[in-house]
Amino acid sequence: MEAITSLCKRRGFIFQSSEIYGGCNGFFDYGPLGSQMKKNIKDAWWKDMVESRDDMVGLDSSIIMHPSVWKASGHVEGFSDPMVDCKASKMRYRADQLFFAPVIVEGELIGYISVLESEKKAAEALALAESLKRKLAKQGRLETPILTPYTEAKAEEYDLIPSPATQKPGSLTAPRSFNLMFQTQIGAMADASTLSYLRPETAQGIFINFKNVLDSTRQKIPFGIAQIGKAFRNEITPRNFIFRSREFEQMEIEYFIPNDESWKQWHQEWVDTRLNWLASIGLDTAKVHLQAHEGKDLAHYARACTDILFEFPFGLQELEGIAARGNFDLTQHSTHSGKPLEYFDEESKQRYIPQVIEPSIGVDRLFLALLCSAYKEDIIDGEKRSLLQLHPRIAPIQLAVLPLVKNKEAIVEKANAVYQMLKKHWRTFYDASGAIGRRYRRMDEIGTPFCITIDFETLENNTLTLRHRDSTQQERLPIEGLSGYLRDLLA
Amino acid sequence: MEAITSLCKRRGFIFQSSEIYGGCNGFFDYGPLGSQMKKNIKDAWWKDMVESRDDMVGLDSSIIMHPSVWKASGHVEGFSDPMVDCKASKMRYRADQLFFAPVIVEGELIGYISVLESEKKAAEALALAESLKRKLAKQGRLETPILTPYTEAKAEEYDLIPSPATQKPGSLTAPRSFNLMFQTQIGAMADASTLSYLRPETAQGIFINFKNVLDSTRQKIPFGIAQIGKAFRNEITPRNFIFRSREFEQMEIEYFIPNDESWKQWHQEWVDTRLNWLASIGLDTAKVHLQAHEGKDLAHYARACTDILFEFPFGLQELEGIAARGNFDLTQHSTHSGKPLEYFDEESKQRYIPQVIEPSIGVDRLFLALLCSAYKEDIIDGEKRSLLQLHPRIAPIQLAVLPLVKNKEAIVEKANAVYQMLKKHWRTFYDASGAIGRRYRRMDEIGTPFCITIDFETLENNTLTLRHRDSTQQERLPIEGLSGYLRDLLA
Repeated sequence: MEAITSLCKRRGFIFQSSEIYGGCNGFFDYGPLGSQMKKNIKDAWWKDMVESRDDMVGLDSSIIMHPSVWKASGHVEGFSDPMVDCKASKMRYRADQLFFAPVIVEGELIGYISVLESEKKAAEALALAESLKRKLAKQGRLETPILTPYTEAKAEEYDLIPSPATQKPGSLTAPRSFNLMFQTQIGAMADASTLSYLRPETAQGIFINFKNVLDSTRQKIPFGIAQIGKAFRNEITPRNFIFRSREFEQMEIEYFIPNDESWKQWHQEWVDTRLNWLASIGLDTAKVHLQAHEGKDLAHYARACTDILFEFPFGLQELEGIAARGNFDLTQHSTHSGKPLEYFDEESKQRYIPQVIEPSIGVDRLFLALLCSAYKEDIIDGEKRSLLQLHPRIAPIQLAVLPLVKNKEAIVEKANAVYQMLKKHWRTFYDASGAIGRRYRRMDEIGTPFCITIDFETLENNTLTLRHRDSTQQERLPIEGLSGYLRDLLA
Repeated sequence: MEAITSLCKRRGFIFQSSEIYGGCNGFFDYGPLGSQMKKNIKDAWWKDMVESRDDMVGLDSSIIMHPSVWKASGHVEGFSDPMVDCKASKMRYRADQLFFAPVIVEGELIGYISVLESEKKAAEALALAESLKRKLAKQGRLETPILTPYTEAKAEEYDLIPSPATQKPGSLTAPRSFNLMFQTQIGAMADASTLSYLRPETAQGIFINFKNVLDSTRQKIPFGIAQIGKAFRNEITPRNFIFRSREFEQMEIEYFIPNDESWKQWHQEWVDTRLNWLASIGLDTAKVHLQAHEGKDLAHYARACTDILFEFPFGLQELEGIAARGNFDLTQHSTHSGKPLEYFDEESKQRYIPQVIEPSIGVDRLFLALLCSAYKEDIIDGEKRSLLQLHPRIAPIQLAVLPLVKNKEAIVEKANAVYQMLKKHWRTFYDASGAIGRRYRRMDEIGTPFCITIDFETLENNTLTLRHRDSTQQERLPIEGLSGYLRDLLA
């Protein structure tokens, strides 16, 4: 993970937001290579999910909406995390990520310890328990501490559990519910203004436009509405680089289907479609796992939900969720707005509120998963190399044109001509400075699939060298016909 | 204008945000055709300004940043509009859009009238003055009322000027300054959280990343950093459809140049570059005017600013601004952050803070200007037609494939094969329902440049009809070679 974050900063993929002002926790900026790669991901999704499909239309709804949207969706009431404050240190924790345990020596409760969520939390808890035992000069067998989330602490325990910041008890508050939506005011000044929210998901913008889309297109069920856009969640503890940030981008589809049992097939079909798509743009499928939620695991509105998980360096985490949401959302918005959000089936002459399948993925998570899939280290010619095996659709730069030397005018001229020709069709970079080997490495490191070198032989027979990033193999090709050859390679 | 807004809603270009909840003033959603067209505009800008240029890199910075950014930029202090409240009606106005005049009859001041900014304000003022004269039963010559903005009213006049809502004096407040930035809180709950802002422009995200970009690329001055993204301004009175909304999208470039007098040439070069680009994607240049700001018209940090104005149906308004900002912004951020934001010129061995040229355009404004440029009405075969003469790069749909009849299997099959072939390369729509003339009209109305019709003759000789939107001319072409022919037409 460290190798990847360091590469991201060094080569201009991702910077911490407002870095010169000490940073802004949970916010990130995409640099020259990162902004291009992020655009490539979004463009690939839009092309394959929207433009190429007859049963899908796009939407681009606003981030700030009428506050009633979030009352109807349940977010005002229920979109919250439990948090706990340490009054001594002013630190704040997610209560479900703070764990405590009684420390028991020879059957006697001698105190409590607390630790934060991590892979090492059991070991940390044991060390703290041992330390407490020593401090209190207790003799005898220490029981292995059994960790419980702070959310399950009893009221009388709040004062006994030490804060992870101070390791002293008495400063932790009871868990409180904290709504994760960012708030803002629309309109001038407090009295005449309206409390509103930055959307915590793009999906609701789709539901409230269902009728508008029906009326302005001639789509028939089954069909979907797709949207890419920013969403905001005021996470108590943003973490894991761009995986859980406070400002992020989503690519969401609401796929409307009949209100019957066919949702099971549609759900399965979308799980398959999305898995295939992720593999097609270079996600390492060996690191992908499916998790089907059932029963009490499910949100109350969901009939089924399958998560596509990915083995990130920090653990197995959700990359995409594919939920069968029934017709909960349209029903809610219909009730709250008083506007019927029904579909009229001309064949069966039936009017009904459709069910929906929701494949929802975070752009930033996918960006990170693709980087993790692509990042490799190997040894070439006895030298360590780090490279990104990015798919050509996703790579920020697709081709690099390199004149072998920069002090031979005919070579530079030729290289420039080839560069001008190629950049019309592909994201092409021209690099003339440094030893050719170093230039190859620079391109490997940012995932450029192919380097094209113009050398002395080019001047003789109009051929060039095409170097493949992954194998480092080089092939000699005539300039004539190069575009056609590349078109196949880069497809 | 009404024809355009009605078309936008009917055909799914633009909807009012949160319409089913009564709307959300100043916010808009882009529908199926609008979201595609907006994407096309952004993609064209990104391709031509970023991907195709060796001296430009992209960036995608966060909407929420460290609040110090906006202190340094001057927005916390100065980004505000004067507003005035009517205490009786609870209405709120921009003080510079509210005008008042003394009413004078035979040299005697008999009272005041007030009107809101509009093209008819002089006529309205006269009518109100005449009405007041009648009401007070005054005889003699009424002087033509001379309108003054409320911002210039004297303190003793506040109580005498009537509210436009009630036409009674005594309810208007003094003008107050209202900051246009949306505020929000980062982090949980009031005490531990940080007051922050939704960015009112994307530009500052570029300046604060200047050093990061320098360090992670090998760009040399002159070079630019370009960004597309959402920005937010809590306008007191949003108006003119998507022209002045509270949530909008910008495409901004900061082009860094030496700190000398060369800025004049660079400024001119960017004015030319941007004008050419706007013309290249179909903006009606007959409706474009340049306005050079000088002297006291200029913002304090600007050395020059040329606005590209467009004749919208509601008047001549700014579409793009091209400002020579000196090195104000980098200097400010350097001072406030304590981090040097300098450039080291390896040739001259000089270290300096570069100046900048800033071409900045609103995506939504450009969207509207392109619609206004494209919207035409004509008479074809004795029938009124409305069409959008959109450039093929911008049109949401580039090609429509239409089987002449839908009950002849061979025709439908052939049409489908052509459709599948074309949609790989272009945004292609398949439409089989309705009379062929009606289908053409539907495509004309949404700006589809070409319709391809498969008919009985196709089955005989493998030719099809290509219909041109603007001329309605049709040509007969062999299917063989169609792609190459279209490639030229759609370039």
